[in-house]
This record gives sequence, structure tokens and C-alpha cells, in this order.
Amino acid sequence: MRCEIIAVGTELLLGQITNTNARDIARELSSLGIGVYYQTVVGDNEKRLMEVFNEALKRADLIILTGGLGPTDDDLTRETVAGVLELPLEKNEIWEQKLREFFSRFKRPMSAINLRQAMVPRGGKILLNDRGTAPGIFLEERDKVIILLPGPPRELLPMFKEQVIPLLREKLREKENLAVLQSKVLRIIGLGESAMAEMISSLLENQSNPTIAPLAKGAEVHLRLTARGSSGAETESLLASKAEEIKKVLGDYIYGEDEEELEFAVARLLWEQGKTIALAESCSGGLLCHRLTNIPDSSRYLLAGLVTYSNEAKINILGVDPAVIAVKGAVSAKVAEMMAAGVRRLCRADIGVGITGVAGPGGGTPQKPVGLTYIALEAENLKLVQRYEYWGSRLDIKERASQAALHLLRLYLLKKLKKAE
Amino acid sequence: MRCEIIAVGTELLLGQITNTNARDIARELSSLGIGVYYQTVVGDNEKRLMEVFNEALKRADLIILTGGLGPTDDDLTRETVAGVLELPLEKNEIWEQKLREFFSRFKRPMSAINLRQAMVPRGGKILLNDRGTAPGIFLEERDKVIILLPGPPRELLPMFKEQVIPLLREKLREKENLAVLQSKVLRIIGLGESAMAEMISSLLENQSNPTIAPLAKGAEVHLRLTARGSSGAETESLLASKAEEIKKVLGDYIYGEDEEELEFAVARLLWEQGKTIALAESCSGGLLCHRLTNIPDSSRYLLAGLVTYSNEAKINILGVDPAVIAVKGAVSAKVAEMMAAGVRRLCRADIGVGITGVAGPGGGTPQKPVGLTYIALEAENLKLVQRYEYWGSRLDIKERASQAALHLLRLYLLKKLKKAE
Repeated sequence: MRCEIIAVGTELLLGQITNTNARDIARELSSLGIGVYYQTVVGDNEKRLMEVFNEALKRADLIILTGGLGPTDDDLTRETVAGVLELPLEKNEIWEQKLREFFSRFKRPMSAINLRQAMVPRGGKILLNDRGTAPGIFLEERDKVIILLPGPPRELLPMFKEQVIPLLREKLREKENLAVLQSKVLRIIGLGESAMAEMISSLLENQSNPTIAPLAKGAEVHLRLTARGSSGAETESLLASKAEEIKKVLGDYIYGEDEEELEFAVARLLWEQGKTIALAESCSGGLLCHRLTNIPDSSRYLLAGLVTYSNEAKINILGVDPAVIAVKGAVSAKVAEMMAAGVRRLCRADIGVGITGVAGPGGGTPQKPVGLTYIALEAENLKLVQRYEYWGSRLDIKERASQAALHLLRLYLLKKLKKAE
Repeated sequence: MRCEIIAVGTELLLGQITNTNARDIARELSSLGIGVYYQTVVGDNEKRLMEVFNEALKRADLIILTGGLGPTDDDLTRETVAGVLELPLEKNEIWEQKLREFFSRFKRPMSAINLRQAMVPRGGKILLNDRGTAPGIFLEERDKVIILLPGPPRELLPMFKEQVIPLLREKLREKENLAVLQSKVLRIIGLGESAMAEMISSLLENQSNPTIAPLAKGAEVHLRLTARGSSGAETESLLASKAEEIKKVLGDYIYGEDEEELEFAVARLLWEQGKTIALAESCSGGLLCHRLTNIPDSSRYLLAGLVTYSNEAKINILGVDPAVIAVKGAVSAKVAEMMAAGVRRLCRADIGVGITGVAGPGGGTPQKPVGLTYIALEAENLKLVQRYEYWGSRLDIKERASQAALHLLRLYLLKKLKKAE
């Protein structure tokens, strides 16, 4: 099955947004064993969309269009696809009802143009959308599968994973002639890309099936293993045994697999060990707390995260000694320690974390440049403070600080803190 | 000048990497006034690359190919482009010399295949590459401009900005018949896409130059105006006068322009009015604080952001009445109010914000479903609490809660809180 992905949207052509949908759809399809042969981007222009769609009908069996399903006049995908295929648009009663309920539930007036979103080319099935008003459309016509999906990734991705993938699996079973291609990602923290590549150099040099591709990702390195085989069971076993080999070399540097973020690995350890945590952030501005609260049920271990931005907040809420701030400055090892100790005591948590630094872009001095950050951990039998110097934008520095704090927490929970750099 | 960008690489088709090059090139070109009409991705496959390149020769005047210039056998762009254009490949002596120096400097053996990177289609100019072994190629042929660039963004982007842009500027001056294309984005909060489209329906229906394109973005709506003209001054004045017309209708629903996020609009108002703020978050988990601290110098108005996740933290730190939690529950209007009041008092801030809700995915009940959120504001002469029901993932709900709090803050600072829904 040859697939072409067509993204519709002038904002993509202008470079205002990135075509992450094509990447995410392609990744999902390749794990199903469906090859994407072309990705195309075209603007909100009927004539050019027609041309591109006609071209795709010639060269692909599966055509996925993203975007252009909104309620306004420049949303042309539904009408253009129906026009090229010479299919009339018919009102879908189920979705019309959904739209009416949606607008009445959120007490918003529904206008006539909204009803366009309930129109489906004859023979098409709708794909339900929990997060927006545009349903997807699944169509089989002229021996092709044609799928229309809404542009916003938060609507498209769940729809694709939960509804499109099962439908495509069914199609594949009908055809029964496809090789399986499957990937697994190993996520690594605490090693640079080249240091890691040296550690596993013989594995990298002798790779065949699975292939092994390293990829630097911010403060992390990812290894993508991709296996080919005649069945899911075969690719799964190839991936599992190669992952085992790599784990023997990289050990605890591997913190997770696939979509598992570092905060999830830390959350799981906290949860398994029944430990509670409280955070005192300054330069990271709540990002560490935001990341840890992205995990469902984080209230089981996270008691509080206090972003004590002003000196007064550090003194009054956390009990940081004003004399220390006066002598050492708010960005100092001692203040980080007192923040960690203060928040731990205040919340009666097992672990306290303190982060203070210069996030920039202003506020740096030769002694305390932008990017200087201290991170402290306090727990039973542990008092630790680390100094870091980061570079980059304000957001880069916040991200690196939150990443370093998670890395320290993970090492502590693994009882491997000696390995911290 | 109609441009098509062709990215070559199987890793893009597999979704292993994102096509950020197309986005970055498109953004640069649109600021030059060159319209990108198509973006295409094709794998490392000679036949399909030939087809795609032939198609581009029919529909574009400027064709930019990225990737496939490496030294190995699956790097086909140079040879395929030369083949389609029927141009012989000739050795570039300057680049051959560069390659020899490069390999001797890094003490690596140079093999015959590396010399492929010094081959250039007849008539082509090389574009120097400081960061890799593949030069770019700039070619004028059949009245088209054809540019080949290396795939890695760290090689491509500086080459594009420093060498390609000046060459394209020169081309534009030669032709002198080229329109400038310029965009401006108006950012709207507090109105849905269709409600907004109705308010400005006559402007949308009668659009010509500038064009007006609405785009839903999470809890916001963006309007992108795109003007064509013969000079930057002309497009700027077209954009300014159309933006004025739209502002007359949408008024304060427009909070910012272009890249300006809602947190920035709020920060600017706080800053102008010399007001300080303190946050007490629960379900939003620090995201509001993270967003407000992404703004440089946020320490001037943000005193603290306390994520009081546990009931104990709400009681001990903010002074929320435990009896109220027992009777009304932690997710209640009264608790949101007490959080706002408590953090305002604790930090002696002008404005206190309290957010409590059910972020999910677990923890919902029929009376208090996942997504139920209360947001309270307290300031001099103001006590306000609003109830919201959101849907979507945990992160969606956090984002919508932080967005709603910023929206309320903006309305309060504009003295328009009566308009809040």
C-alpha cells in the first residue's frame, strides 16, 4: 500500500507552523508496515489542491489529507475532494446532532456555516472528534482509501491512533501481503551523543536488522531501533533482543522507552518507593512542577511546588535567611540548599528540591552569568547541591534546569547519586 | 516567483525526523516576498525523485531541493537533477581542494566516493559549507532557478541565510516585476472561530488584497492577513489599514499581533500599570506560572506562584479553611476564592489568582467531572470566581485553565471584566 500525505494550509507554506502531522502520521504508518512515498503541502487554494489531489490519485493507494476541515470559507478540503471524486456532499445526522449539543453545552450560538462540518461525501464514514467540531472522514473510492483529518494535532493524533489505525489494520488483513516494520526508541540521559556512540560502537557498526539510529534531542539522546519482519511477533522479538544487548552496555543511562518522558520515569520511581516530594523553584519558573504534574495521579507524590520568584517569597514562605541572600546573593549554592530544606520542612515531604539561577536574557554579571544555575536536593541522609552553566534562550535554560533536576532525582531514587556529574 | 521546496530523504517519509527545513526556508522566502506554492517530500529513490522534480519544473520558477547530497550511494539528488536537466557533472577544483584539506585536517582517509561531493552540474555555482563536506549548488537553467542544499539544518540554514538569500535578492532586482508578499497575524481571545467569522463576515466575503484567513489555535483564534504589493511600504500600509478595519469590529478581542503570546499581553499590562501578582495553582500544576515566567523580567511583577497540590499545602501555606474543603471539596468556587485571597495576602501582591479543578484523567465524579475548573481573582475592589468545563487530555485542561486565567487577568487590567463570559 503506497501512501501519500497531503497537508493543506497556507500557514504551512508560509513557514508559520511545522508539518508535525506528516511526521507523526508517517511514523505510525511505518510501524504498521505501510510505506509513505510522498508528502505534499499545498495552500488553501482550490485549484492547486485539486491538482495535487489528482496527482496523488495517480501515484498512491492511500491518501491522507490533513487540514482545511474548519467551518470558514478558506477551509476547502471536504468540498475539493468531493468535487474531484464527483461525489455529492450529504448531511451526516449524527454529526449535526453532535454539533448542536456541543454548541448548546458551551452556550455558544451555532451559525449556519458550522453545519458545513456535518457534510460528508457520499459513501464516507465519519471519524469522531472529541476535541473539536470537525469530524474526520474515511472514504473508499476508485479502489483507493482516502482519509480526511482535521489539522490541529491535538484533534488529529488521537483520531488517527484510535480510529484510523484499526481501520487500516483491517484493510491490511484483507490484502495480507505486507511486511511489518516496527520501531522502538531507547531514551538516554546523562551521556552525550558521541560518548554514547563510542560505548556502543561495535553495535552501531554491525547493525543490519534492526537498524540503530542515534538522535540528539535537547539534553537527551535517543536511539531508534527499526526491525523488519514477516509478522509483529518476529519484529517484536528482534527489537527486544537488540534492546537487551544495548541495555547491557548502557545500563542506567537508559531511562525509558518510546514516548516515555524523563518526568514519567521519575514519577514511577517516586510512586514505587512511596516517597513524597516538594519543589522550590526560582529561575525554572514552575516548569519542573508543570512537567511533574503532567503525569496522571501526580498528586499522590507531589505535595507542592512553590515558585518563589521574589526574595521576599524566598524569605517569608521558605524561610531562607535574608543575611545569606544579602551576602551570597539569591543565585548561590547556599540559597538553593535553603530553598530545598525550606520547602521540604514546610510540606513535610521526603524530598525537597531547590532551583535558583539566572534565566536571562538580562540580569547576568561576570561572576554570575546568564545560565548559571544551582540545584539542591535534600532528603533523609542527603544534602546535595550542584552548579551548572547553561547557554541558550530563557526557555532553553528553564528546560535544561528542569531536566537536570529530574536527572538528579532519578539518580537519587536509583541510589546512584555518586554517578551525578 | 513561484517556489517549490523538495525535501529528499527516506527518514522524513518514515517520520523519524521533522521537515523543519521546509518551514525555515518558507519563512525566509516569505519575508523576501517569494511565495512557496508547494512543499514535497520524497525518499532516496531515483525514479520518484525524477518524477517529483519534473513536476516541479512544470509548476514552479524556483525549486529548492534539500538533502541527498551526502557521499553515500543513497544520496541521489545531485546526479538526478543533472540527469533530468541533461547537464554533465563536472569536477569543481575549489571544492576538491577543500575536501582534501578537510580529510587531512581531521586525519581521516579520503575515499573515492567522497569526491562525488565535488561534482557540480555544468553551469552551477557552488555554495560554500563551513560545517560539512557537501557544498550547495545554485543553478540557472531553462529560465528556472534551481538550488540544492545539504539536509542537516546546521549546514543548510547558515548557507541559506548567508549565501542563497543575497543571490535571490539579486534575482528579484533583475526581474523587478515581483510582488512583495507580507503577512500580519492578529491574535484573538474570548471568541470562537465561527463567532468571530460572523462578526467580520463582510470583511471575509469581500477580501482581495490583503487576504484574510482565520485559524483556530487551541483556545485562541488567529487571523492572518497577507498583502501583495510592489514594495514593502505598500504592503505595510495595506496591512495596517485592513488591521484597523478589523480592530474596529473585534476591538479588545484582539490581544496581540504576530508572535506575541497572551502571557506577553498580560505581562505588558502588569508592567505598564506597575501591578504585582501572585498565583495559587492546583490543577494547572504550575503551567500559568511557567508561561508568565517565560517573559524576560517577569520578576518585576510576579512575586510567587504556589502550586498547592495537596490539601495540606492549601491549608498550611495559603490558609484555606479545612472546614470549607471538607464541606465543599477542594474543587469548589469557595476554595478557588480562598486560594486567590490567601496567596495575595501571603505575598502582599496587588492581584491574587486561584485555580482549582479536576485535570483528569482519573478523579472525576458526576458532580465534579474531569475538566471542571474554578478560577478566582482577587484585587482591590474585586472578588471574582468563574466556573469552566473543559474537555480533552490532562495537558489540554491545564492549557485551557492557564489560558482562561490569562484572559481574565487581561480583562481585569483593561477594566473590562464585565465582558468576561
